[in-house]
Amino acid sequence: MTGKLVIIGVGPGDPELLTVKAARHIASAPIIAYFCAANSAGRAYMTAKAYIAPDAHLLQFVYPFTTGVAVTDARYMREIREFYDHCAREMAVHLDEGRDVTLLCEGDPFLYGSAMYLHDRLSERFESEIVPGVTGMSGCWSAARLPMVHGDDILTVLPCTLSEARLRQLTQAGDAFVFMKLGRNMPKLRRVLTALGLAASAIYVEHGSRPQQRIVPFPEAPERAPYFSMVLLPGRKRVR
Amino acid sequence: MTGKLVIIGVGPGDPELLTVKAARHIASAPIIAYFCAANSAGRAYMTAKAYIAPDAHLLQFVYPFTTGVAVTDARYMREIREFYDHCAREMAVHLDEGRDVTLLCEGDPFLYGSAMYLHDRLSERFESEIVPGVTGMSGCWSAARLPMVHGDDILTVLPCTLSEARLRQLTQAGDAFVFMKLGRNMPKLRRVLTALGLAASAIYVEHGSRPQQRIVPFPEAPERAPYFSMVLLPGRKRVR
Repeated sequence: MTGKLVIIGVGPGDPELLTVKAARHIASAPIIAYFCAANSAGRAYMTAKAYIAPDAHLLQFVYPFTTGVAVTDARYMREIREFYDHCAREMAVHLDEGRDVTLLCEGDPFLYGSAMYLHDRLSERFESEIVPGVTGMSGCWSAARLPMVHGDDILTVLPCTLSEARLRQLTQAGDAFVFMKLGRNMPKLRRVLTALGLAASAIYVEHGSRPQQRIVPFPEAPERAPYFSMVLLPGRKRVR
Repeated sequence: MTGKLVIIGVGPGDPELLTVKAARHIASAPIIAYFCAANSAGRAYMTAKAYIAPDAHLLQFVYPFTTGVAVTDARYMREIREFYDHCAREMAVHLDEGRDVTLLCEGDPFLYGSAMYLHDRLSERFESEIVPGVTGMSGCWSAARLPMVHGDDILTVLPCTLSEARLRQLTQAGDAFVFMKLGRNMPKLRRVLTALGLAASAIYVEHGSRPQQRIVPFPEAPERAPYFSMVLLPGRKRVR
């Protein structure tokens, strides 16, 4: 009998925003795997820490780089693939020997989660279960008390790594927007939203649901945003 | 001292997919409000039922109609506004007298939730807190074990009440898609996805995360879908 791969979304950061199911799974998990940046405890791990059994075996997967290498660099794709292959092999050792492995993931695992790349590598060989989590964006718009998507609104989630022309075109096509992956792309997003007359309606949220949370109107947002930040633009409010 | 309005997302339907915070709030809530259809116990209520204190006071808000009156009908807008005004007044009676009121909402409150319309009516007069929930779409793609949104993918959530031309245009512009509000719009969605060569890649999920859950390839989906169903079209898988 091989083990089961359990992928768990731990939510936006507040440890109380894990689901009851996630808390139960984590408390009884013999092996807990998670990603983290070099010299970091790992955000998914920190969020779930209070629920992890003291004798759980931890598999820490340290990303080979974060923002140091551009995504467009051929080295990025080669090294990140090798990294995920390595993580999958480490997990497979335990799964092959019949032990369940629980992989923690920030937010919801299948919405921009690295866990997907391990799922792709392991789900054909091993039984798997996905426990959904509260997304980072739900955490942010709830913290901002910003009703986002109404009636027949379209919701579009846009990574700001897109070109300025494409960002602008897509922002004209929808109703409610979440702008992700801000980082160095803030000036680009500022130009797009200003040109479309939408800057004043947007809200910037940093570390939503965490103690260091910061919520300000978009015009007051910093020029360079940390990874855990997003800009929210609510949809129309049809029924008033 | 007036009471506090607490709006809680109870997640996609599995009672274990409530957050720890939601469960804690609900267990200590003196007054629980929720929406439901006529002759129905209410899905948010049923999902949260196990956590509600036996002596909690229940405020049940029965929708004046569900699919009986078209959204485009002037009567719809007038009656639904009157309905939300009435609900807000009922809640305000308790809030004014200093009692907290907890409003339950399926999925996440600020993503297509009716709770937004009560928040709009009450949040300026009363303190409010929003507890985010796992969205119905996360519940569905996790149940289907379908990795959805990768790397720099765009996620677009489209209500199928849009015109066929607009649905088609928007489906050509993005990467990953969630098609909501299927109901009578399934033949329209089928024409759009078939014309774009995407029908075979899409997955139909009905009652995701509930016991009666059903997951089938889109070509095998029914011609008329229940309200709690969606079609998922995953994005590109860049890092393999």
